[in-house]
Amino acid sequence: MAAHTIATTFSSAFPFWDKLSATDQESLCRTSHAVTFPKGTNIHNGDECTGVILVKSGCLRVYILSEDGKDITLYRLFPGDICILSASCALNTITFDVHVDTEAESNCIIVSGCAFSDLSERVAEVKIFALETTVARFSDVMWVMEQILFMSFDRRLAIFLLDESAKNQSDSVKLTHEQIARYMGSAREVVSRMLKYFSAEGIVESTRGGIRILDKKRLRALAL
Amino acid sequence: MAAHTIATTFSSAFPFWDKLSATDQESLCRTSHAVTFPKGTNIHNGDECTGVILVKSGCLRVYILSEDGKDITLYRLFPGDICILSASCALNTITFDVHVDTEAESNCIIVSGCAFSDLSERVAEVKIFALETTVARFSDVMWVMEQILFMSFDRRLAIFLLDESAKNQSDSVKLTHEQIARYMGSAREVVSRMLKYFSAEGIVESTRGGIRILDKKRLRALAL
Repeated sequence: MAAHTIATTFSSAFPFWDKLSATDQESLCRTSHAVTFPKGTNIHNGDECTGVILVKSGCLRVYILSEDGKDITLYRLFPGDICILSASCALNTITFDVHVDTEAESNCIIVSGCAFSDLSERVAEVKIFALETTVARFSDVMWVMEQILFMSFDRRLAIFLLDESAKNQSDSVKLTHEQIARYMGSAREVVSRMLKYFSAEGIVESTRGGIRILDKKRLRALAL
Repeated sequence: MAAHTIATTFSSAFPFWDKLSATDQESLCRTSHAVTFPKGTNIHNGDECTGVILVKSGCLRVYILSEDGKDITLYRLFPGDICILSASCALNTITFDVHVDTEAESNCIIVSGCAFSDLSERVAEVKIFALETTVARFSDVMWVMEQILFMSFDRRLAIFLLDESAKNQSDSVKLTHEQIARYMGSAREVVSRMLKYFSAEGIVESTRGGIRILDKKRLRALAL
């Protein structure tokens, strides 16, 4: 992607763009590059400084990973969204590590973490933008935390299945237990156990490659 | 507390103090007041805008509360710390509610949320300070989340008891199951069940008003 195309993207994605000098604009473009990642690529892995990621198309999943491989989805990023947590060198008050994978083929622009950090030290608007973006993610994470810690799992699974069904306008949810667990930030065993319970109750049935909702009324009652 | 005493406190607590005009300094002092809260006072309750709280002495506990009354401690604030999440009107990207209680008699200065918000819109350094303080709390919350979601509870309880024992230089931990649950962000039932298991194993014994550690070696092994 040519530098002037990156500049066009930046001018609409970064609210601080007009506050930068021509030299800073040019330098930010020069230290940035466009990349297309296939679906399922791990593009940020813990504490290295991958850089600031601007999503042009596709979808990124941001998650935390335990030592024994359990992962919890914090939020997803869609076209127009910006990932700052992957630029640990740009935010020195962030002491935790996240991982970022693509969930679909994704076109991204990656801004060098050092260049971004340097700029944010000189231009208050850049620093405010980086911090505000991070604080907005804090709200997303609190929501996930409350979902996981406070809401009972049957209710959460019922809500998830109803949402998927509504989204696809179908009574079939074409996801494996493993995928549902990942989307819900839970473990496969927990999902399988609850689905077995729902099946025994005649609420859903397992199908090849997914779940079919049999009793939407009872599922809705669980979701209340 | 006289306005000049508040000004002295602000000048050491707020790194942006010297960047403010004399008028802004004066006005911030005028919209602030000192309060002494007894131990156990709820000083912020969800989504109202209590204001920015500066802790001069004592200790504040910041937590989230579920509809059915379960609470999870996010972090504690000590002298010199500042609570921004209690000033929802000053941070429009924060969409979740926290609660704040005193855990000891606490002297605080409360800055009007509106005055602070107005100032942060005009002075970039104030906004950056508010956002950076919030982002640092984000890191605290992620730590708690990983503790709760990833670490097995026996290990967490073992670590907690060893920490308390080391802090008080005693094998007795003078806390009820309810208090331990609250400190650990768990439920009393979960704590009681695990302590019963530890007792059965001869690792601890329940005493009047607390727990005595009998086998520190095994407790340490659990904490690894």
